Amino acid sequence: MKKNFKITIEYDGTGYHGWQRQTSDRTIQGEIEKAVSSMADQEITLNGSGRTDAGVHAYGQVANFLCDTDHTPEIFLNGLNSLLPDDIVIKACEEVPEDFHARFSAKSKTYHYRIINRRVPPAVGRQYAWFIRKKLDVNAMRKAAEILAGKHDFKAFEGAGSPRSSTERHVMKAELHEQDDGLLIFEIQADGFLRFMVRNIVGTLVDVGFGKVTPDQFKEILTSRDRSKAGATAPAQGLFLMEVEY
Amino acid sequence: MKKNFKITIEYDGTGYHGWQRQTSDRTIQGEIEKAVSSMADQEITLNGSGRTDAGVHAYGQVANFLCDTDHTPEIFLNGLNSLLPDDIVIKACEEVPEDFHARFSAKSKTYHYRIINRRVPPAVGRQYAWFIRKKLDVNAMRKAAEILAGKHDFKAFEGAGSPRSSTERHVMKAELHEQDDGLLIFEIQADGFLRFMVRNIVGTLVDVGFGKVTPDQFKEILTSRDRSKAGATAPAQGLFLMEVEY
Repeated sequence: MKKNFKITIEYDGTGYHGWQRQTSDRTIQGEIEKAVSSMADQEITLNGSGRTDAGVHAYGQVANFLCDTDHTPEIFLNGLNSLLPDDIVIKACEEVPEDFHARFSAKSKTYHYRIINRRVPPAVGRQYAWFIRKKLDVNAMRKAAEILAGKHDFKAFEGAGSPRSSTERHVMKAELHEQDDGLLIFEIQADGFLRFMVRNIVGTLVDVGFGKVTPDQFKEILTSRDRSKAGATAPAQGLFLMEVEY
Repeated sequence: MKKNFKITIEYDGTGYHGWQRQTSDRTIQGEIEKAVSSMADQEITLNGSGRTDAGVHAYGQVANFLCDTDHTPEIFLNGLNSLLPDDIVIKACEEVPEDFHARFSAKSKTYHYRIINRRVPPAVGRQYAWFIRKKLDVNAMRKAAEILAGKHDFKAFEGAGSPRSSTERHVMKAELHEQDDGLLIFEIQADGFLRFMVRNIVGTLVDVGFGKVTPDQFKEILTSRDRSKAGATAPAQGLFLMEVEY
């Protein structure tokens, strides 16, 4: 009887070509599968809650794997952390019912996007934020962000090359938090995300912050379902997958 | 007439052999002197507020330099930031009276030391903290930290090879702050620091946290003036020079 293990993963995506296993490049999934397979002495495939793109970080990515083993979750937790490179950490490991699937069982996900908006760039932690020198109008950005809450068709914010059958998603939360030293955190929780959706939203919110787009025009972009009307894709390094809710 | 410029510097010390210029290795001082000399078209020597060791970070290191130039502080600020590598950032540049000296004019300095105390190590920001898995007794550490405030002879916490004429220092503040996710920040402000003083204090505070040393014994170590009684030197990567007060 195979057991089903759920793992919660923190990673610094700086050195990786994203989550998904690839034949040539280093990926998070590839590294973890190698470590789990070595511990379990069998070929293991991970089900991730979803991909993250190259350079994106995670505090709470979730995956599960089926495995015929006597190892306890505790043994996997400690063993994987000693096998994995130090920019990938397994934060928790538990045995779950056989029907748990990291992707299909997920109810929602929460992302943070970090912007540093001040005169001078950061040196410490520069790999964890998008630095923007020009002063942003945070109030206008907040007004635009509020428009995102609820059920909408997010086709205008979908990256090319990944058509989905439906581009409607339910956003439970979309908030902009202003912190010290020019740090802005955009928090978004939704029942699902289209490819590049958060980064395309952030790129367009920054256009609002620059005064190039008004909050009303932001709403028009959303309802247009037209990617060409939205802003540029924000850089990967500011994006963090914070949590997957089940 | 030479002008005197004061610069405030943030750096990620991970890739450097510390502050002080060396003939062979990359240092913060060396990188900034190269950039200033190139902008000023003359050989410039920086007076730093003090050295930081290899791997130590800074949010607010201060230095000054004398220079025969028409450049405004604004021109230096922007020019230096475009010349410097992205792990060194000039946060501020101002012209100061000719008798200002970053080291001799300093009244005090504030350091932070970051410890992450939880079951699993961090992946994001792992280069900015000392990870300790074993549960620390934060209350005992706080009691010990309080002993440091005031004027004391800190010889017990002085690193070898850097004898000073006096090892007495005045600690204005020594506090331990407990934050989310097991983050502990030890904050210390003093009129001066001996070599490795903060890291040796932190190493000994961690012994208190492990229960190997009581707060009373911590006080005995301080008054003993005997380095061999104190704990190990905490790793460089947790240490941040936060501010130099003038």
